[in-house]
Amino acid sequence: MSSRMRRTATTLADGRELIYFDDDGTGAPRELRDTRVLAPHAPATDLRFDVLVDEWVAVAADVDEGAPDAEADVCPLCPSAPGRATEIPADAYDVAVFESRFPAFWERARPQQPGDDDVALIRRPGAGRCEVVCFSDAHDASFAELSPGRVRTVLEAWIDRTLALSALPGVEQVAAFENRGQALGVSLEHPHGHIFGYPFVTPRTGQMLDAARRHRERTGGDLFTDIVAAEERSDERVVARSEHWIAFVPAAARWPVEIHVFPRRAVRDLPALAEDARADFGGFYLDVLRRLDALYGMRMPYVAAWHQAPVRAGDDCRPLHLVVHSVQRSETKIKYLAGSEAAMGAFINDVAPERTAALLRAPAPSRRSRVDG
Amino acid sequence: MSSRMRRTATTLADGRELIYFDDDGTGAPRELRDTRVLAPHAPATDLRFDVLVDEWVAVAADVDEGAPDAEADVCPLCPSAPGRATEIPADAYDVAVFESRFPAFWERARPQQPGDDDVALIRRPGAGRCEVVCFSDAHDASFAELSPGRVRTVLEAWIDRTLALSALPGVEQVAAFENRGQALGVSLEHPHGHIFGYPFVTPRTGQMLDAARRHRERTGGDLFTDIVAAEERSDERVVARSEHWIAFVPAAARWPVEIHVFPRRAVRDLPALAEDARADFGGFYLDVLRRLDALYGMRMPYVAAWHQAPVRAGDDCRPLHLVVHSVQRSETKIKYLAGSEAAMGAFINDVAPERTAALLRAPAPSRRSRVDG
Repeated sequence: MSSRMRRTATTLADGRELIYFDDDGTGAPRELRDTRVLAPHAPATDLRFDVLVDEWVAVAADVDEGAPDAEADVCPLCPSAPGRATEIPADAYDVAVFESRFPAFWERARPQQPGDDDVALIRRPGAGRCEVVCFSDAHDASFAELSPGRVRTVLEAWIDRTLALSALPGVEQVAAFENRGQALGVSLEHPHGHIFGYPFVTPRTGQMLDAARRHRERTGGDLFTDIVAAEERSDERVVARSEHWIAFVPAAARWPVEIHVFPRRAVRDLPALAEDARADFGGFYLDVLRRLDALYGMRMPYVAAWHQAPVRAGDDCRPLHLVVHSVQRSETKIKYLAGSEAAMGAFINDVAPERTAALLRAPAPSRRSRVDG
Repeated sequence: MSSRMRRTATTLADGRELIYFDDDGTGAPRELRDTRVLAPHAPATDLRFDVLVDEWVAVAADVDEGAPDAEADVCPLCPSAPGRATEIPADAYDVAVFESRFPAFWERARPQQPGDDDVALIRRPGAGRCEVVCFSDAHDASFAELSPGRVRTVLEAWIDRTLALSALPGVEQVAAFENRGQALGVSLEHPHGHIFGYPFVTPRTGQMLDAARRHRERTGGDLFTDIVAAEERSDERVVARSEHWIAFVPAAARWPVEIHVFPRRAVRDLPALAEDARADFGGFYLDVLRRLDALYGMRMPYVAAWHQAPVRAGDDCRPLHLVVHSVQRSETKIKYLAGSEAAMGAFINDVAPERTAALLRAPAPSRRSRVDG
């Protein structure tokens, strides 16, 4: 963590962990007191093994996407004020991370039903952890409007939590997300994301590591390094470049808008990023997000997901990248998953990736404060 | 095909194939004439190989989900009338199947861009075929309201097209779908589905066959037979049974509503169904669909997808089943795919499959004309 940042850990009234990451820790120390009365909550989750495709599915009876009181008047992610107690008992904050009250995975999860050895009934408890990451205390802000310095603090929070969640018993993979926009069902506008410690290697990551292994057997090369090199050579789908990062629309994009952000030197996960790549990320990613918002002239709804190596992967596993995708086909149209996509996993994209890349790459006069490029 | 049904093949003005399947072919033969002037259309599709996960993605520049003029005043799937020419040049029909005008896959598809040997740029033309299947000429009907006899005609149409599409050069798998409801982005209310001849084995099917192979290596058993037997034994998630069919909510359901329909004797595909299983299907499936509509007291939006063995699969590959799923969590709420599902492939279901099964299985007094059970 950079020298001026400050990390302050505390617990909420029901025992959940809360950690503040302050951009500049030179001020007065944080007061740590959650005055609410909250009964401890013991979430029930079990994992079911889908034998049809050999994948785990989580069945979590009372998940609410990590945000308690999402429908109440009070935004639970805003700072607290007299008479308005939120999940964050402070009158201001920079970045705050807390354990979700209704998580999909929980360290002491009890199974909803006993297991069974029968082929269709392989189960285990949904151990793991789900945390909410608040990027700003400003309710109406968006990630694209953060300062590069704040993005650096968010990055350090992701790194801190990746290390912490990876160390929990039973956690096999850590993924960080931002889900933004009502088109994605996000009910809370407050700029926030999630970080999940999964008790299994996620299906897409498992497939990716299998593909990387086959690629190495076939070519001797590292899949992730070779993809970045191929996109650099072709140049046709590159959206933005900096010294340490590259963003492109992948040649086989599934979604109407899809951008892959790779570090130019492959690493296994966020904690493995060198200082210079960390320092370079904020300005680079903000430029990418502003291009995204400029595409249709609207705050683009999107999912951004960090793909990292599983906790127990070997040293030659260096898949770190961020995928930002959107179902938005135009300012008013949405791509829905129909039978081919939802049932067969076969995506049909009616937008050529090269066309999306050209639009994202074009200079947008309306774009404010271009950070680089 | 049953003895009274009649199959009549013709071509539309631009050369696309149209086939009528009549419930009862004892009447006058069909007149075959499309009076429209339609320029032949040569759709451009290319397949891109997603090296990150070893899957094919189709990039089809002008796909419209198979239904031309979806936004025009005239429903293109209704029968034609004087001054109202539709895709079906007849004043009435039972079941009609025609080649999509803007298909995702096409036998003579030209690639949009030349291929490349570079790792990120493996491409080939999107050969194959996409057909639209109209289940009724009544615009406001729904599949659940068809007669058992009509369902039999639809089943025979799926069988006929599975055989025909499987025989096309380059087709590796045939899948039949029904997508219903605006929650799924279906703009045409007219009851219809699609049948796709894919130029690759779809990702989910590939995974399923890998899982079945591993299951056979581990246990010696057939995965699909063993799943049905396990669900029968457990009984907890069974929704409906008939002599030849069983429907259950799978133990590892991904969606708020998900029903798997299996024949009780495993077969490779629809053409492999014996006469008695075919005859039994209509009444059985109509009962399942009515239970689905009764769940929230609304026409349930859903995707129904037939999973069949790939064209070139071995004789021991007998995966035939129908998956019906819905994103509808309640009468007003939708499940959205957030980061975990859309980016990681890790589904978190907040509805216990056992609970959904109990609700679907309960007798619903409001349900009209219970067919069996």
